[in-house]
Amino acid sequence: MSVATFDATKLLSDLGALRPLVRRLQRSTTETINKCLLHLADLTEAAIPELVAANALDLARMDPANPKYDRLLLNEQRLRAIAADLRRVAALPSPLGIIQEKRQLSNGLKLERVSVPIGVIGIVFESRPNVTFDVFALTLKSGNVAVLKGSRDAADSNRAIKQLIDQALEAADLAGACYLAPAAREALGPILKADGLVDLIIPRGSQGLINFVRANATVPVIETGAGICHVYLDQQANLEWAQAIITNAKSRRVSVCNALDCLLIHRHQLPQLPHLLEELGKVHACEVFAGPSALVALQAEYPEELLHAATEEHFGTEFLSMKMSVRVVEDIEEALELIDRYSSRHSEAIVTSIPENEARFLQEVDAAAVYANTSTAYTDGGEFELGAEIGISTQKLHARGPMGLRELTSYKYLLRGQGQTR
Amino acid sequence: MSVATFDATKLLSDLGALRPLVRRLQRSTTETINKCLLHLADLTEAAIPELVAANALDLARMDPANPKYDRLLLNEQRLRAIAADLRRVAALPSPLGIIQEKRQLSNGLKLERVSVPIGVIGIVFESRPNVTFDVFALTLKSGNVAVLKGSRDAADSNRAIKQLIDQALEAADLAGACYLAPAAREALGPILKADGLVDLIIPRGSQGLINFVRANATVPVIETGAGICHVYLDQQANLEWAQAIITNAKSRRVSVCNALDCLLIHRHQLPQLPHLLEELGKVHACEVFAGPSALVALQAEYPEELLHAATEEHFGTEFLSMKMSVRVVEDIEEALELIDRYSSRHSEAIVTSIPENEARFLQEVDAAAVYANTSTAYTDGGEFELGAEIGISTQKLHARGPMGLRELTSYKYLLRGQGQTR
Repeated sequence: MSVATFDATKLLSDLGALRPLVRRLQRSTTETINKCLLHLADLTEAAIPELVAANALDLARMDPANPKYDRLLLNEQRLRAIAADLRRVAALPSPLGIIQEKRQLSNGLKLERVSVPIGVIGIVFESRPNVTFDVFALTLKSGNVAVLKGSRDAADSNRAIKQLIDQALEAADLAGACYLAPAAREALGPILKADGLVDLIIPRGSQGLINFVRANATVPVIETGAGICHVYLDQQANLEWAQAIITNAKSRRVSVCNALDCLLIHRHQLPQLPHLLEELGKVHACEVFAGPSALVALQAEYPEELLHAATEEHFGTEFLSMKMSVRVVEDIEEALELIDRYSSRHSEAIVTSIPENEARFLQEVDAAAVYANTSTAYTDGGEFELGAEIGISTQKLHARGPMGLRELTSYKYLLRGQGQTR
Repeated sequence: MSVATFDATKLLSDLGALRPLVRRLQRSTTETINKCLLHLADLTEAAIPELVAANALDLARMDPANPKYDRLLLNEQRLRAIAADLRRVAALPSPLGIIQEKRQLSNGLKLERVSVPIGVIGIVFESRPNVTFDVFALTLKSGNVAVLKGSRDAADSNRAIKQLIDQALEAADLAGACYLAPAAREALGPILKADGLVDLIIPRGSQGLINFVRANATVPVIETGAGICHVYLDQQANLEWAQAIITNAKSRRVSVCNALDCLLIHRHQLPQLPHLLEELGKVHACEVFAGPSALVALQAEYPEELLHAATEEHFGTEFLSMKMSVRVVEDIEEALELIDRYSSRHSEAIVTSIPENEARFLQEVDAAAVYANTSTAYTDGGEFELGAEIGISTQKLHARGPMGLRELTSYKYLLRGQGQTR
């Protein structure tokens, strides 16, 4: 692509001009913000033909056989759903001004810790134009200025969406509180290094995108991404639950980060293995990479063409497809060790009826979400009833697991005195 | 210095070997951790002669005229204070296992959000060997494995301290849960880039050190550091308070990040300026860089040799010495704008008797700690009664302002079900 489409100096100057908007938002009321979101919902519904037309320009540049095509598509139904989402975000409680702590110090100072916006949040995302609406709504609701870096695939859609956002912001006297970065790929680098201008970067997209952001950003990043997820079936467990959980965690949606990648099964449960995987084999045609004992146990029963001997590489792999590995363990200790070695610390589950093992698993497994007797598929902001989700953090600082509006805030300490000095 | 003293391969292999200790600590009880800290306090008091002797080797390499000399010095009194500090940390409540949230989801799942250790925390610090004890105690208390990267100046002291730490850890069956990185400067780079092995880096020291860490780290960093702090004296205010606050914020300790750098004074208060700065001039010999109107107001009264016309560079400067700038503003709006432009978002204060202005300042100023009618000198973990302080964060993610034990934790979600699937 041509460098002529992109002007780095202008980009940095644009980013530098966002600071007054941070202040303006800090002074805005929840009512102003909510009105702006409701207004955007109305504008979106009124502009369905224009949005669909702009989207058609993007679609025309993409092969309909490309899996991205469907993600790129906007139609009336999707746009009405987007408008409904905007109204839903407007109706959520504001995450700002929450008094997280309130104490009087021994010297008489009154201390409060209050939630505040982070400032300027850059969101880097691919194709899906619905994300443009979504992340704008969540950053505005949390009082932040959004820097949206979409992909070239969706450039026309994003431009049309941004026009509506600008209208809504202007009507709320918040003109400029959202910035759409140039669609050119070259625009990403300067944003990632805009220390002091951008306070946080959240990449949403492929592992390749996330790796690029991690490697190049000097601005703080919250990573969202890979989930290498295990289910451990313990020595004693409700096998109906186990069967349902394994099937659900693997087959609900294979392309998501909370999908099951590796089943660890206590050696006493080995005779149950064929039954446990029956639905996955027959209904879902799930490919299984089995360790030696599991392979033997499955050989007579599991569809032959779907069953393979596992090699080391099949453990610690995020399949993102209808594939999984299976491995027999001696005891919960070995399961905990393997999970610690291979897990990406996203979502891990135990199925057990032994209370001490449940407690131990929940205590010792180091992951954003640890499950007992339920499916890893629940790692999701909606399922956690957070109200909204901007992504699922795979890191430990600031935010872990599903991130809602609260995770888009920072805090400050307020101290009120009467002339005290130290 | 010679590269031969440092083996990068060994360093990375050592860091890689810390993971089992993360798990061991996750399983440790608060009692084990506290006992270990109390044991270390006893060992320290018993080893005073050995520690002083090791410290003497470091001191022998430093010019006693160097300001670092005193910071490097360990003596009986300081070591007894260190032992007392260790006992104090042992007595603090554990920040782990705190249930931050507990809800039943509509599908019946029981959700809890629980505080957990971060994992492996690297602390990079200079000279002061008391920091070695201090950060070890705080990281262990919060269930984390510490990677201590001290400076070469303190290499012998740190080695001797580490021997005691090892003894205490071994007795608690936690051998290896603290790692002292090679003192060589070359050892810092690989630690900063040890993604996956080190979860967090906290630099404690000079701005130069902090800048180096920020520029080179790929591991997440919590920055501690610069404070460019303002006091704004509003149109109406208690002038006794104002005088005391300005004097205290500037003169209590000039080398610290919460010290006053710039006084902003409402134009109606200009006639009071000479009196407000009288003590700073006469008692503390504070150099003042005054804007045009302030310069005129002070000229007859402030010691001539200490009074200078300010240039642009004097605003937005962290002086870290007995110097400050003074500037007259039209109104609170101008004060807020200047603070937003020049502040490092550390500690900012207003002195006012106008309630709306107090509220507006507290609401709009974007800083870790915002003060009304009291001194910026209070930005400190001890003063905030956090129990302990590992540093004062100048960033907005994860932790802002004084960081205590709580800020050395992450969290995880625990979900307990009865066979639910999504």
